[in-house]
Amino acid sequence: MEFLVRIDVALPPELPAARRAELLAAEREHGLALRRSGAIERIWRLPGGLRNVGVWVADDATQLHELICGLPLHPWAQIEVTALATHPLEAGG
Amino acid sequence: MEFLVRIDVALPPELPAARRAELLAAEREHGLALRRSGAIERIWRLPGGLRNVGVWVADDATQLHELICGLPLHPWAQIEVTALATHPLEAGG
Amino acid sequence: MEFLVRIDVALPPELPAARRAELLAAEREHGLALRRSGAIERIWRLPGGLRNVGVWVADDATQLHELICGLPLHPWAQIEVTALATHPLEAGG
Amino acid sequence: MEFLVRIDVALPPELPAARRAELLAAEREHGLALRRSGAIERIWRLPGGLRNVGVWVADDATQLHELICGLPLHPWAQIEVTALATHPLEAGG
Amino acid sequence: MEFLVRIDVALPPELPAARRAELLAAEREHGLALRRSGAIERIWRLPGGLRNVGVWVADDATQLHELICGLPLHPWAQIEVTALATHPLEAGG
Amino acid sequence: MEFLVRIDVALPPELPAARRAELLAAEREHGLALRRSGAIERIWRLPGGLRNVGVWVADDATQLHELICGLPLHPWAQIEVTALATHPLEAGG
Amino acid sequence: MEFLVRIDVALPPELPAARRAELLAAEREHGLALRRSGAIERIWRLPGGLRNVGVWVADDATQLHELICGLPLHPWAQIEVTALATHPLEAGG
Amino acid sequence: MEFLVRIDVALPPELPAARRAELLAAEREHGLALRRSGAIERIWRLPGGLRNVGVWVADDATQLHELICGLPLHPWAQIEVTALATHPLEAGG
Amino acid sequence: MEFLVRIDVALPPELPAARRAELLAAEREHGLALRRSGAIERIWRLPGGLRNVGVWVADDATQLHELICGLPLHPWAQIEVTALATHPLEAGG
Amino acid sequence: MEFLVRIDVALPPELPAARRAELLAAEREHGLALRRSGAIERIWRLPGGLRNVGVWVADDATQLHELICGLPLHPWAQIEVTALATHPLEAGG
Repeated sequence: MEFLVRIDVALPPELPAARRAELLAAEREHGLALRRSGAIERIWRLPGGLRNVGVWVADDATQLHELICGLPLHPWAQIEVTALATHPLEAGG
Repeated sequence: MEFLVRIDVALPPELPAARRAELLAAEREHGLALRRSGAIERIWRLPGGLRNVGVWVADDATQLHELICGLPLHPWAQIEVTALATHPLEAGG
Repeated sequence: MEFLVRIDVALPPELPAARRAELLAAEREHGLALRRSGAIERIWRLPGGLRNVGVWVADDATQLHELICGLPLHPWAQIEVTALATHPLEAGG
Repeated sequence: MEFLVRIDVALPPELPAARRAELLAAEREHGLALRRSGAIERIWRLPGGLRNVGVWVADDATQLHELICGLPLHPWAQIEVTALATHPLEAGG
Repeated sequence: MEFLVRIDVALPPELPAARRAELLAAEREHGLALRRSGAIERIWRLPGGLRNVGVWVADDATQLHELICGLPLHPWAQIEVTALATHPLEAGG
Repeated sequence: MEFLVRIDVALPPELPAARRAELLAAEREHGLALRRSGAIERIWRLPGGLRNVGVWVADDATQLHELICGLPLHPWAQIEVTALATHPLEAGG
Repeated sequence: MEFLVRIDVALPPELPAARRAELLAAEREHGLALRRSGAIERIWRLPGGLRNVGVWVADDATQLHELICGLPLHPWAQIEVTALATHPLEAGG
Repeated sequence: MEFLVRIDVALPPELPAARRAELLAAEREHGLALRRSGAIERIWRLPGGLRNVGVWVADDATQLHELICGLPLHPWAQIEVTALATHPLEAGG
Repeated sequence: MEFLVRIDVALPPELPAARRAELLAAEREHGLALRRSGAIERIWRLPGGLRNVGVWVADDATQLHELICGLPLHPWAQIEVTALATHPLEAGG
Repeated sequence: MEFLVRIDVALPPELPAARRAELLAAEREHGLALRRSGAIERIWRLPGGLRNVGVWVADDATQLHELICGLPLHPWAQIEVTALATHPLEAGG
């Protein structure tokens, strides 16, 4: 099933640069793995902040939850999940 | 998959009584069928208006959409759908 | 440029069935054309109503505006447009 | 009486792992007890965060308040309570 | 059980005066009956419009729903229901 | 004059237990005094948190302000004040 | 007592010009009378629409309600009332 | 003084085409005059609907109000006005 | 030009009493100066918190900005500014 | 492409003055550079706080994102981005 997932991350402004870089690198690695696995089908940056919107694929909401909670930046994130249905324009015919 | 579905119906106040009764009866029949099929697992009235919240079961959001759109009162309804994941407290053990 | 476009359509509940069918058919034809042209890259149904979210591609917001306003159901629609930037996870590497 | 209770928990991101695990374990134990007692009739995870929605049963709102305030994670929680009435579709007949 | 019930009524501005007077009179009669029965324990006017907030007493939300839906102005009303618990300051001692 | 006053208190989750108990006791004493003086006519707990809604009586909003600001938990509180008018159903006759 | 009252009027766009002029004239007359009586102490236009914010004076919210409901445009108006207390900067000294 | 003015126009979907065209033409003429007079300094289309945001120049909010209310589409418009101050980056130096 | 300015101040609950008193005294002095200069024409306390609404007078929004930013409590304040136009009822005649 | 960008900065109230001055100076320098480069076409102060609204020019949302994230005050900022289309009144003719 496909889900639209919006993630807004708010890292503390005065977080030491090293810690910030470490977290962002871990998030990137984790994200690339999710991309390779197909869990993140598409993802876009919402301009202006550490926030994105993406199309995630999971068997159901339970698996989606585990995938999202695995993100290193999850503790600093506000997450919005919207269930997506197939649109007639993509149902072919 | 389970979904929490909130339905708020706003029928025109001066709708002829007969038409209102006809619509409500059709809605009731349709609802009972969805209950019998298991599509509506649980449903509660939100006190004060023609509105309810229910736990619906569907293969995915696409099937859920068709189920909801079949409701006779659908044209007068505001619908809110929330995907539900299994909670650890219900995952047994 | 890519845009996330949400479209919520509210047709009058008591719209004559023929008129409704005619509008929906015209919307479908128009949508298929936009799909073929690549203007609508992906589109999903938001379960529960005549509403969708899609990824549209246009040179800029001016062209996007013309594309959206051409939709037959546009007069009955609430439209939300979000500009999308490339996410590092899709920037390759 | 049945209540729909939504609980959103926001634990400090940099809470020491041991303290976090201790709190989550206590919450789980407490939750299982409420499940066994029937106070929590059904409960679902809202995917993406430490948040859930559940159907709680209590004599009235006063007893519900005490049940909710007993949760170990209560000090970090935003709670939303909605009174539920019996829906005609569940009233039998 | 006690409930805080807010009722905002929006009658059509150009409703014929006679029809408006008839509805308001019926609402008043019905309200007085609910006052006499104790269903409406206290009620206040929210200054500026045909809107009020009141403390209603019912066995549970199901009975509350029936009481509210019986109001003649119900079809034109937006209703907000909040479950009330006993406050320690009223629990005596 | 009567006012509907909603008070939502957010104490820091990791406030030392002794300090929390001390504040809650002081709030209770202060509340009882306001009840005895008639300043708080009625008060209910909003289930799920340290929050309440009450009917306060004061000569005017200026006196109400002083009464509310005297609450020991005031520094941690979000306060919402609504002016209440007499409802025809309570105006007798 | 002083109240801050915001009034947003939404007249039907295609209201016949004569009827519109008649209503606006009646509103103006009524407003001038309230100004002369001191009920409306100050009033400002919120630029861009048929909307204003004003400082009204009434014995209490009950009298304020009657004053506001007497406005000819009341049936088309959204009204927001805020109780005002004396500010230390105006309390003299 | 400069103001940021957002205008969202909602014309009835089934407004006769001729009437719609007539209104839009009148709005265009009026807008061009405001552009020539400098009252509208800059204006952009918000993609997806009959809505815009613009920088208007007026002596004060009173003159701005008259300018906006003169727009032919004003009766169908929702207007949002934000006062703009000079930013240090534009204050030269 | 006149502006309606709402100021909501949120001082940290556990701010040392002396520091709080010092800030409030400085704010009061500054406020009295603004009252004497006519910059603050009228100001009211919004009952229940350290918040007020006032009518400020400034040449334009740029001057208003400087006046507001000079307030000692400004760093802890949420500020809402609304431009005010002259209302016909105050335009004389 | 043009974007309307709103930036609301919330610096900690008790930030040491030197650190605050250092950040504001860096932000000013960076802003002047963006003005000189044409990235910030116009910018206004929203009176009452460290907040502005501006018209930014970038090839697309991806470039806009990089420009905004380069601002020294970015870690303390809430950013809102709105895509702007050309309005017929500016399309010449």
